[in-house]
Amino acid sequence: MVDFIYWVGMAAVAVNALTGVLEAERKEVDVLGATFVAVATALGGGTVRDLLLDRNVFWVVDQTYLITAVAVGIGSFFLIRHRRVSPRWFLFPDAIGLALFTVIGTQAALQWHTPWLAASLMGVITGVFGGVVRDVLCNEVPLVMRAGALYATAAWLGALLLIGLQQAGMPDLWASGITMFAILGLRMAAIHFHLTLPSFPAKRDGS
Amino acid sequence: MVDFIYWVGMAAVAVNALTGVLEAERKEVDVLGATFVAVATALGGGTVRDLLLDRNVFWVVDQTYLITAVAVGIGSFFLIRHRRVSPRWFLFPDAIGLALFTVIGTQAALQWHTPWLAASLMGVITGVFGGVVRDVLCNEVPLVMRAGALYATAAWLGALLLIGLQQAGMPDLWASGITMFAILGLRMAAIHFHLTLPSFPAKRDGS
Amino acid sequence: MVDFIYWVGMAAVAVNALTGVLEAERKEVDVLGATFVAVATALGGGTVRDLLLDRNVFWVVDQTYLITAVAVGIGSFFLIRHRRVSPRWFLFPDAIGLALFTVIGTQAALQWHTPWLAASLMGVITGVFGGVVRDVLCNEVPLVMRAGALYATAAWLGALLLIGLQQAGMPDLWASGITMFAILGLRMAAIHFHLTLPSFPAKRDGS
Repeated sequence: MVDFIYWVGMAAVAVNALTGVLEAERKEVDVLGATFVAVATALGGGTVRDLLLDRNVFWVVDQTYLITAVAVGIGSFFLIRHRRVSPRWFLFPDAIGLALFTVIGTQAALQWHTPWLAASLMGVITGVFGGVVRDVLCNEVPLVMRAGALYATAAWLGALLLIGLQQAGMPDLWASGITMFAILGLRMAAIHFHLTLPSFPAKRDGS
Repeated sequence: MVDFIYWVGMAAVAVNALTGVLEAERKEVDVLGATFVAVATALGGGTVRDLLLDRNVFWVVDQTYLITAVAVGIGSFFLIRHRRVSPRWFLFPDAIGLALFTVIGTQAALQWHTPWLAASLMGVITGVFGGVVRDVLCNEVPLVMRAGALYATAAWLGALLLIGLQQAGMPDLWASGITMFAILGLRMAAIHFHLTLPSFPAKRDGS
Repeated sequence: MVDFIYWVGMAAVAVNALTGVLEAERKEVDVLGATFVAVATALGGGTVRDLLLDRNVFWVVDQTYLITAVAVGIGSFFLIRHRRVSPRWFLFPDAIGLALFTVIGTQAALQWHTPWLAASLMGVITGVFGGVVRDVLCNEVPLVMRAGALYATAAWLGALLLIGLQQAGMPDLWASGITMFAILGLRMAAIHFHLTLPSFPAKRDGS
């Protein structure tokens, strides 16, 4: 289980770093600026979680995460530099990163004996915070706040599902896997079928 | 005193969550996006204070704060969803939140034996940081930086007043109460009478 | 060495506070708003470094840093209030602050027995984070991300140079001094000769 979580975490760092570069592409940044965004996106969520739980920050303890984020940042910069990248290429890795990080964040908080609601929020923070940092750095309203995408919703429902499954006695590995697919599926379905929650739109029309 | 501070803190969380939803209303966000802003606004200032003081983060220790913020976020979303909300409805709870959080932040820092100037800044950070997070998330220049409202000024003078009153031997409860009304009064007076500090306006006219 | 690092840190706080006020000048903020930006710019990088390393936050332990930032913030506000300040006046102190903070941050991380790559990133974070906070507060895309200035690049190469020099047995004082001039020189040369790294510009022309 520990090994599995470790490599899932590394994969989450890699895909989140990729989304950072894809978003930075829309701004006029150079290779190091893009890598900076990549690193902040990849490590931001887990860093905030570790600070809040008063654990040692994961990438200070184990440099491999940092090396992964830097390598993906630089590599993907040169890969996509002269291509036209469809927004679809941005949303899919972003959804994968969300699913992976939410599961890892919730697991880490539960192992730290955090109460369940706070643990589910740690999952959401780990899942979405990297993207929030990315969007704030790029001077955009964070994706997590924009209507019509079940973003934090998917993460939160997933975190609660994971806690419920483990409480019901399912092994961690199974519960984690099911939760990842549930979050990814819900988010992809939300994008594809335009599922939405109630939002604040009507005022725009002067109602 | 402990009980009093506890419930004052809960009230501050509730009103700050409300201001988060009121600000998110101007952006096109859904119910979870609004709740996300509400939670960040309500818990942001105290979280930063606890991280800086190396204390356990208050809402990880006691979930009640988190539940309050989430409940107020969801509830106020549906309450104001189909209404036209006057900006005045935003500024008054914001001022109350500022007053309550500044007092709590300063008290917490003093109990942690922080030197007085740093303690007063902890009060200001606890008071204003939630609002800064809210404004950065909503892609606005933070309220605390905009001219003509004695925002951080009111918080800082209040924090210094509290430290002075307690140093002079006044019981904590009295000193806290007086300080809250002083901050609220100063902020409301600043809004009403357009009190201002020296600012950077003249350059705009090409001087 | 300890004394030297101490006063270099104080100088870095002062020049970073100055850049905060210079940037706030472009927005309509009052004296406390400008001081708020000055304090956040001056203390932001070191604060994040201390949180990540789980050290006591430097300005909570020693108020002198905070007093310096506040004094410089208020003082420079009134000094530049009625003047037209050239952008050049902004870039030079910013480069000095970058050089000083990068060296201090790297040194602090090395003394804390952080692995070398993470230590170099701590240097970069200490160097650039204050400026990132300043730019996010002022609702700008952070300077560190904009193309064509070798900003984080200069900090990172400098941090790696410092680690290399100390590894090679050079005394801390010499290694620190050389690194500071190297960062400052590289950054100034980048601004003057328009040195650039590969960036994402071509898409703008509709390629």
